[in-house]
Amino acid sequence: MDAKMDPTDTEEFRAQAKAAIDEIADYLDNISSQRVVSAVEPGYLRPLLPSSAPLDPEPMSAIRADVQSKILPGITHWSHPGFMAFFPCSSSYPAAIAEMYSNAFNGAHFNWICSPAVTELETIVLDWLAQALGLPECFLSTGPTRGGGVIHGSASEAILTVMVAARDRYLERALAGLPEGSEEREDEMWRRRSRLVALGSSGTHSSTRKAAQIMGVRYATVPVSAADGYALTGEAVAAKVAELKGRGLEPFYLTATLGTTDVCAVDDFAGIARAVAEHGGSEDMWVHVDAAYAGTALLLPENQEALARPLAQACFQSFNVNPHKWMLTTFDCSAVWVRRRGDLARALSAQPAYLRNAHSDAALVTDYRDWQIPLGRRFRSLKLWFVMRAYGLAGLRAHVRRGVALAERLEARLRAQHEAFEMFTGARFGLLTFCVRPQEGGGGRDGEWWTRSVYDMVNAEGGYYLTSTVVEGTFAIRVCTGVERVREEHVDGLVEVLLAKVEELKRSG
Amino acid sequence: MDAKMDPTDTEEFRAQAKAAIDEIADYLDNISSQRVVSAVEPGYLRPLLPSSAPLDPEPMSAIRADVQSKILPGITHWSHPGFMAFFPCSSSYPAAIAEMYSNAFNGAHFNWICSPAVTELETIVLDWLAQALGLPECFLSTGPTRGGGVIHGSASEAILTVMVAARDRYLERALAGLPEGSEEREDEMWRRRSRLVALGSSGTHSSTRKAAQIMGVRYATVPVSAADGYALTGEAVAAKVAELKGRGLEPFYLTATLGTTDVCAVDDFAGIARAVAEHGGSEDMWVHVDAAYAGTALLLPENQEALARPLAQACFQSFNVNPHKWMLTTFDCSAVWVRRRGDLARALSAQPAYLRNAHSDAALVTDYRDWQIPLGRRFRSLKLWFVMRAYGLAGLRAHVRRGVALAERLEARLRAQHEAFEMFTGARFGLLTFCVRPQEGGGGRDGEWWTRSVYDMVNAEGGYYLTSTVVEGTFAIRVCTGVERVREEHVDGLVEVLLAKVEELKRSG
Repeated sequence: MDAKMDPTDTEEFRAQAKAAIDEIADYLDNISSQRVVSAVEPGYLRPLLPSSAPLDPEPMSAIRADVQSKILPGITHWSHPGFMAFFPCSSSYPAAIAEMYSNAFNGAHFNWICSPAVTELETIVLDWLAQALGLPECFLSTGPTRGGGVIHGSASEAILTVMVAARDRYLERALAGLPEGSEEREDEMWRRRSRLVALGSSGTHSSTRKAAQIMGVRYATVPVSAADGYALTGEAVAAKVAELKGRGLEPFYLTATLGTTDVCAVDDFAGIARAVAEHGGSEDMWVHVDAAYAGTALLLPENQEALARPLAQACFQSFNVNPHKWMLTTFDCSAVWVRRRGDLARALSAQPAYLRNAHSDAALVTDYRDWQIPLGRRFRSLKLWFVMRAYGLAGLRAHVRRGVALAERLEARLRAQHEAFEMFTGARFGLLTFCVRPQEGGGGRDGEWWTRSVYDMVNAEGGYYLTSTVVEGTFAIRVCTGVERVREEHVDGLVEVLLAKVEELKRSG
Repeated sequence: MDAKMDPTDTEEFRAQAKAAIDEIADYLDNISSQRVVSAVEPGYLRPLLPSSAPLDPEPMSAIRADVQSKILPGITHWSHPGFMAFFPCSSSYPAAIAEMYSNAFNGAHFNWICSPAVTELETIVLDWLAQALGLPECFLSTGPTRGGGVIHGSASEAILTVMVAARDRYLERALAGLPEGSEEREDEMWRRRSRLVALGSSGTHSSTRKAAQIMGVRYATVPVSAADGYALTGEAVAAKVAELKGRGLEPFYLTATLGTTDVCAVDDFAGIARAVAEHGGSEDMWVHVDAAYAGTALLLPENQEALARPLAQACFQSFNVNPHKWMLTTFDCSAVWVRRRGDLARALSAQPAYLRNAHSDAALVTDYRDWQIPLGRRFRSLKLWFVMRAYGLAGLRAHVRRGVALAERLEARLRAQHEAFEMFTGARFGLLTFCVRPQEGGGGRDGEWWTRSVYDMVNAEGGYYLTSTVVEGTFAIRVCTGVERVREEHVDGLVEVLLAKVEELKRSG
């Protein structure tokens, strides 16, 4: 067979893969010359592709050409310096190279023997990261409570797994007095299950509600208020727990957040710990801390005392951060640590004969399949290892500090234009939200109209991509400055664009 | 900064990434000269690495050198021609190149606008694959029932999501007569939830039991027997359903399997459809078909009439196959199709303000986040597209036919040595199981001792990696011949090694 048409030919792979590297390097080097958001219309791709798979092999050069001509126009560029939407989730060179090795060492890696390095590097690198974030030692694999970390594909999976562990731990204790296998225990179990309630705040990410939905347990929202900066307080938790218990329900789980998705609020960990201790004790309520985005800010030592240290308190059973967000580790890499790994394994283990092997049976090794929903796993720790080494903690801290400073600069610039803009929530961990004030010439329209109009115009233009949020009825523009390529010129340029849109609206409105 | 220490330097990326390509090509080209299974001892890696992350950046060349010296010894080589364990999950060059682009276009891709190409290519390529497998048109995105496919990370996630959809559909119907929000409806809902039962057979993969465990619903096993080749029959399903209903329980979900993990049995789809129709109707029981491994054999047109066509019957609501197993698409790529996509979205949707956009609100586009557990998603369809095009259906069929023929060859070779070996289950879809007969000189030990001993000796030697299984008390060696590099010489070589081990045991026993 012609090597160009033989997908197993190694020399052809060398040539095509290296050509792809050059294309990727060119793409990333020139990314700022693109629109940020793809401008295609829904359904753009189907007419460009055949209606079924080809019978005969096609050369890789033809497939690569289609990536440029058909796929690239449908890409929104998350590594673009004008990408200030959602949260940063850019590519990085060290992660990209690590993923190349991960693909070469491909396998399903569901237990230790499937590739010992996959399990062992994950344990070690998550200990590195826990230390770098200043997490209490209960979350280390070598810690006193037999804790440890695991990498999931997403925070949603992380939260589902810890909520399952929380439920099973709660039920085990609730049913402790009843004989195993008895009808009495069975009836009581179903009665208790129907009363369980998972809690989040109104700022908690939707993944907590979704986890409850999947598990079929009740979900209740604890209110937050502007007065507390939209952070969950211990008082609010105590009041909700008391209310639920008064109705015969049993709150067993709470997600607290370090950096909410909408406004980057940080819940009051110390207050929550006190509230939980006073209402049934930390053994009944599993408090998980979701730091998916802003947890990366714990790399800065100045944040650790206030934000990582309180997690040593007994109610905090688990903590997650997504290095694939602000930490330059290509999606997917979502890390979660638990205080007692046995809680996870008891809830999630399933051990058929064909998965048995001497090392696992002797409990000499960690079988991460019992810490997660899937059986198989990718070699994801490799990219986290590459990123931590290639940047070093110093490099990662510089990256985080830049994102924080850029949001503060943006806030200062917007405040300087106080006739046009009003901060909704100030810069925190590289994220801020603001509104556009009603201007003359808008036909008396309100701030929401001005804010929405400016927001839509900026996004339509294509130089920047922003997201919006609605908090207690207020529509605000939300800007996140954590993407690696963002520099002062891009932040300053955004202010120019925003002002230009306001002026445009004033003229045309 | 010295370019060698700057992780953002594009020229350094070009050089390092190309050097990595050469290392990967060399690794894969010389893979057969390695042991298959890593020989490291548990805990080998920690002493080789520092106890914490470095403060300063390290050059990529140093990190790459550590991959060779510290990671590679801990890798089990799933692409090795002696890898006949578990199931095939090898790398392939087209998938590897696709993943390089996927990493460059990195983002969280949770809705259409995040990168339209990510959503649209997935829909198109899963239509391609459904057609190539001969699946009924109800599973196509363009089909009459508004079905469609989605890529998950694993079959476990696929099964959890369809089981959640099945539960919510069942409850919605069961509670249809009761007013929304009423106490009566609430009470009845919890009563019904406590009675729900998910079903699998004793050959069903553990992921079904695990999904039930996560959701907190009961799980029941339908027995299978040697007489039916360990396949689930309609009669067995009917009997179990009747028994459960007699106890006041409500079976709502069943996993049927095309190619069980242990012996590659194929459940009786037509019989199951009849049984379900007779016991409450196909609207009550959601039957999912798990074809994670052997579904790839449906690429062969000769298998489609008997195995894909019956899935048109109304009870079959969903179907999954893992292209990351036998279909050369690097882990992770697990495809699942549903008959009605609305069933998934209703069960799994969560829609906060910051995820809203005009295209999604107008239902012009598919938001795959509502088809899955996570919010974010990798660009996984790219590798499936690359693999289907670079191999062509002809190339993929040749690959599958080779795996099937190699297992048949192995069976013939083992049968020719009938004094030493006894087939447990014959070759099917590239998988067979066999036992070693008791030999003279083993001190009167039984077949299980001989089988276990030979199995352990082969795996210890390192030229081949096999798995074992226990079916109804019989310990059997399980061989899977689907890895891309396996050729006749490797199958013949395995028989030689097996015979040599039997001889060795006879001498030493």
